[in-house]
Amino acid sequence: MSAEIICVGTEMLLGDILNSNAQFLAQQLAQLGIPHYYQTVVGDNPERIKKVIEIAISRAQILIFTGGLGPTPDDLTCETIADFFGSPLVERPEVIEDMTRKFAQRSRVMTPTNLKQALLPQGADILPNPTGTAPGIIWQPRPEVTILTFPGVPSEMYRMWEETAVPYLKSQGWGKEIIYSRSLRFWGIGESALAEKVAPLFDLSNPTVAPYAGKGEVRLRVSAKATSETAAQALISPVEQQIKEIAGLDFYGVDHDTLSSVIGRLLRSSGETLSVAESCTGGRLGQILTEVSGSSDYFWGGVISYDNSVKVRLLGVNPQDLDKFGAVSATVAQQMAVGVKSRLSTTWGLSITGIAGPTGGTDTKPVGLVYVGIAGPNDEVASFEHKFGATRNRDFIRYVSANTALDTLRRRLLAR
Amino acid sequence: MSAEIICVGTEMLLGDILNSNAQFLAQQLAQLGIPHYYQTVVGDNPERIKKVIEIAISRAQILIFTGGLGPTPDDLTCETIADFFGSPLVERPEVIEDMTRKFAQRSRVMTPTNLKQALLPQGADILPNPTGTAPGIIWQPRPEVTILTFPGVPSEMYRMWEETAVPYLKSQGWGKEIIYSRSLRFWGIGESALAEKVAPLFDLSNPTVAPYAGKGEVRLRVSAKATSETAAQALISPVEQQIKEIAGLDFYGVDHDTLSSVIGRLLRSSGETLSVAESCTGGRLGQILTEVSGSSDYFWGGVISYDNSVKVRLLGVNPQDLDKFGAVSATVAQQMAVGVKSRLSTTWGLSITGIAGPTGGTDTKPVGLVYVGIAGPNDEVASFEHKFGATRNRDFIRYVSANTALDTLRRRLLAR
Repeated sequence: MSAEIICVGTEMLLGDILNSNAQFLAQQLAQLGIPHYYQTVVGDNPERIKKVIEIAISRAQILIFTGGLGPTPDDLTCETIADFFGSPLVERPEVIEDMTRKFAQRSRVMTPTNLKQALLPQGADILPNPTGTAPGIIWQPRPEVTILTFPGVPSEMYRMWEETAVPYLKSQGWGKEIIYSRSLRFWGIGESALAEKVAPLFDLSNPTVAPYAGKGEVRLRVSAKATSETAAQALISPVEQQIKEIAGLDFYGVDHDTLSSVIGRLLRSSGETLSVAESCTGGRLGQILTEVSGSSDYFWGGVISYDNSVKVRLLGVNPQDLDKFGAVSATVAQQMAVGVKSRLSTTWGLSITGIAGPTGGTDTKPVGLVYVGIAGPNDEVASFEHKFGATRNRDFIRYVSANTALDTLRRRLLAR
Repeated sequence: MSAEIICVGTEMLLGDILNSNAQFLAQQLAQLGIPHYYQTVVGDNPERIKKVIEIAISRAQILIFTGGLGPTPDDLTCETIADFFGSPLVERPEVIEDMTRKFAQRSRVMTPTNLKQALLPQGADILPNPTGTAPGIIWQPRPEVTILTFPGVPSEMYRMWEETAVPYLKSQGWGKEIIYSRSLRFWGIGESALAEKVAPLFDLSNPTVAPYAGKGEVRLRVSAKATSETAAQALISPVEQQIKEIAGLDFYGVDHDTLSSVIGRLLRSSGETLSVAESCTGGRLGQILTEVSGSSDYFWGGVISYDNSVKVRLLGVNPQDLDKFGAVSATVAQQMAVGVKSRLSTTWGLSITGIAGPTGGTDTKPVGLVYVGIAGPNDEVASFEHKFGATRNRDFIRYVSANTALDTLRRRLLAR
């Protein structure tokens, strides 16, 4: 019993897009304990898609398709599969209803071409698409062949996979031994430094411990093989404890935790509030904080003081200090934090000023130089200098700056 | 004459890494005009690798392998290929020399396991690896089959491709025709709606026109086959013109253009400035605007008025109107835009207030309801209501809201 991933789309043959769907599905199949040995990418071409199906059914029992379910003429996956297995396409009224409703919600008009998406192979079950308009199918055209189709749009595919495909695959009793993983997340420590601290754990066989360098952060993935999630968790948790003790404050969360969700929990529990003042990040810090639903409980807002005039007008930064120390300085970072804290009357004020590049760097103030300011209760105020390296690009420097500011607050809140 | 990309590595079957090599090679083959119709991913397993080779040589003449050239026991690509074509492996002294030199440079000791990398199929040419220790091969085991192998490490693979593979492939006279593409970008129109407007163009053969749905936007890819980039552009430009005329203001840019880069050009040329007031997007609008290096020329900053108190204090929104119409209303959107414009004394003020969800929606004000406000010269002020659909997630609604605000300004600036 094995699965095969088939990604359909000429855009992948042209290199227009990165095939992230294959990686997602591969991870998911591993977690479900369903082996898969091949991944194939093929263009929007019926004859070639059929050849791929022919090969796939000769070596796998579950065929997972992504891409080619859309409304346009080059979206051919569903009809080609039906054609291959000699099954007619049948229009599904429930799909048309669902599409009509979604178009209405978005106050857009449904065009005749969309009706194409309602044509599914006879006998196939609908694999509902909660977010988009193109549904997938779960179909056994032959006793030994099971087909699942998904749109190429990752966000739509993910939800369809999690909400319908996973329960279905489990219900079939496929994947007896599961692989369950916990991802431990760290900020403010490098991959090699962390790896050295936990080196002995890399020799473990079940669970295994493996390091991954994420964007500006490091993760340790602890994976256990077991017959149930509970059994796997029992294997993982002592190792997880050990790692947390070794890492101390460099550890910030697990799995889907983010620095902003962790800070959210801390601020909510202490009943405190936060405001931000951003220069080089231009709003990214606020954006990351408000990625958390319900963040309005503790995040009140902030000022994007991209131009110096805004630093003076809305944050009360001293113009003489701006001239004397420059916008990218510890002094200005502190005044920004104090300014936003007092003007929005929040418990904490967090600020960022720096040089994101690629231009604007000097010998004394190179690209990647960033100051984080923090203002808190009892007139507490501090600033921290960071050098994120002139070799990094603008996006990376802005991303790391915003998250480093969050990490600064996180450590401060935990230090009490 | 076509090529096939074969990526070897169990880590891809486990979803540990994203297969960016396939995308790179796909782009490169397209640029060289060498057609390729299939990509395969297979694990580090000799039997399965052989099956893949068997299939590949039945449908392609150039087989491009990445991965599995390293020193560890699970690196089996080269020996498996040799085995498949019944060729012995021969140790190449020049490879050993090269490895010895590189290990010395890095003041590391070469281990016996590395010698494995010097074993290449009899008759194969070495495909030198300037940065790493594992060389690739260029080999014609049969007259109609050409094999190129590369390590999985992208940086090593790229250089080997550019320095040796490209000249070789050109020298073989393959890929006389290049494929050149332009990506036309649209905002504010759905994929099916746009597809119907330009439907006749989908029948063109050279250039071809194909639609892609991006995140909240639609793209049309115009691809031409020709002997030179100039010749390809000559084929594309009339079609591009035609599409632009059909799409009107829904068209916003090409290739790497973004709504923020387009707005940047417009504001810079008119010497005007912009500020933003954000509620549900929490800073995302400012962040997107400042993704453009040099945006400080026209973007001065803004206010993240997440909490209503900030709308009143920093933007001068009328508290009575907040009570009467609610924070998510046309009135408040307009007052936010006017407020930020006047307090930051910019030419334009752009505002967003809405319900990003997943919570906070009501029957009258559902999740996805967003108001964009715009204030401009001569006390001009307007607001626009959008319904992005309650089925969309928070991130999507925030992303589309921010870009829709940019699109509103773009259309306003172009309408003059």
